[in-house]
Amino acid sequence: MPRLKLVVAYTGTHFAGWQLQPRDRTVQGCLEDAFATLCQHPLRVHGAGRTDSGVHAVGQVCHCDIPPEKNHIPWQKALNAILPKDIAVCEAAYVRDDFHARFSAQAKEYAYTIWTEPRYVLPQRRPLVWSVGRVDEHKMAVAARMLTGTFDFAAFQNTGTPVSHTVRTVYHLAPEPGAAGNESTWLFHADGFLKQMVRNIMGCLVAVGRNKISVDEVKILLEGQKREMAPATAPPQGLCLRKVKYGELAGPDH
Amino acid sequence: MPRLKLVVAYTGTHFAGWQLQPRDRTVQGCLEDAFATLCQHPLRVHGAGRTDSGVHAVGQVCHCDIPPEKNHIPWQKALNAILPKDIAVCEAAYVRDDFHARFSAQAKEYAYTIWTEPRYVLPQRRPLVWSVGRVDEHKMAVAARMLTGTFDFAAFQNTGTPVSHTVRTVYHLAPEPGAAGNESTWLFHADGFLKQMVRNIMGCLVAVGRNKISVDEVKILLEGQKREMAPATAPPQGLCLRKVKYGELAGPDH
Repeated sequence: MPRLKLVVAYTGTHFAGWQLQPRDRTVQGCLEDAFATLCQHPLRVHGAGRTDSGVHAVGQVCHCDIPPEKNHIPWQKALNAILPKDIAVCEAAYVRDDFHARFSAQAKEYAYTIWTEPRYVLPQRRPLVWSVGRVDEHKMAVAARMLTGTFDFAAFQNTGTPVSHTVRTVYHLAPEPGAAGNESTWLFHADGFLKQMVRNIMGCLVAVGRNKISVDEVKILLEGQKREMAPATAPPQGLCLRKVKYGELAGPDH
Repeated sequence: MPRLKLVVAYTGTHFAGWQLQPRDRTVQGCLEDAFATLCQHPLRVHGAGRTDSGVHAVGQVCHCDIPPEKNHIPWQKALNAILPKDIAVCEAAYVRDDFHARFSAQAKEYAYTIWTEPRYVLPQRRPLVWSVGRVDEHKMAVAARMLTGTFDFAAFQNTGTPVSHTVRTVYHLAPEPGAAGNESTWLFHADGFLKQMVRNIMGCLVAVGRNKISVDEVKILLEGQKREMAPATAPPQGLCLRKVKYGELAGPDH
């Protein structure tokens, strides 16, 4: 069956996350509903990874196998016509059938946005930021540099999902250049992320920026690999999955 | 009574506009409710101008007169603590008592954002843009330059509000520099605006960008001052009141 790859954007506010749930509204659930409507047949959608309840995406990737008799459907147009307004298909293309949204993924990029003006939060930005007040962004950047590299990130993992090992390589962790005004966006680029790893690191960076913990304590936390010592997890609404990176497998099939 | 000036931001999506309505939820209504709660006494809030249902603001201005026994209240903090999350007070300061949010205003700036990628709208941007598909922005800029200056803008006015005259001076009307990707923001700076003037001009510019009407026809429309010849009004959600400009009166009182 022809394999279709989608790049999907969503506002996470009104979703109980990516993954299908029996009762709650999820992104995977809405996509599978849309495919079922268009194909008059249930289809399984495979995501590159789960995003938590309330987390946003502009570049989530998923794939599904289209029944051959339906492969003439202009998927992007057809899906966007019936999907709810908080999900959009940004790209749709047939790919090689050995492409897998999750297993072929080589790296991911997340962005976490904090609002730093203590006196108010702009209502237009509120759904997409964590309001933290004044923070020392220089200190945060020092801690971020320390977390860049290959480490056992067990201390930044929430339990719940069994994983074979907790070593990950963070290629880049720094504020996005060109920030101005009342917010800053922190970019996370790694070969993979543990459960709530970005939000746990961000909670830690903000604690550093608020002088609640020192950069040295972050180092001890990382080395000790003990989650219970860590500051609180950052809330979901500041987080956005920007991009999932693939090798050649993800190219167009024809 | 001490006169308080506020700079207010709001997401217009769930408001029936600025102006108080007997039944509908409005920005003025929510602000007056908040003042009444804090003062235990009704207060009248005077806005710089009405914004239509669905229109946003990041720099609306209003004033109100505070009972002297309440002038110790830290207004920004107190209001932001009880206002709904789609309104925020960005600034609050006492001003001279001859300052008037509406009558002292010397100029206003609006921004109108269009989304130009025809295949999808990013859900994060949908509440704040008008999705117009591909448009010829060069042609739009030519028409915009033609509308810059002092003219009788009667053809770009919706009826309903009696005004003494319909001549306005547009100081600046052009796309905001630095736009990238799938949207562009058009800035409108004038000494004042007629009812729905920005949305009517924007409807006209987009019609030019879609090759539905020519730049010459915009000129004829302006000169003929006949609204019924004009393209449809642009929808409210792309519009944002950026700034209201005052002279020295708006400075702090002490």
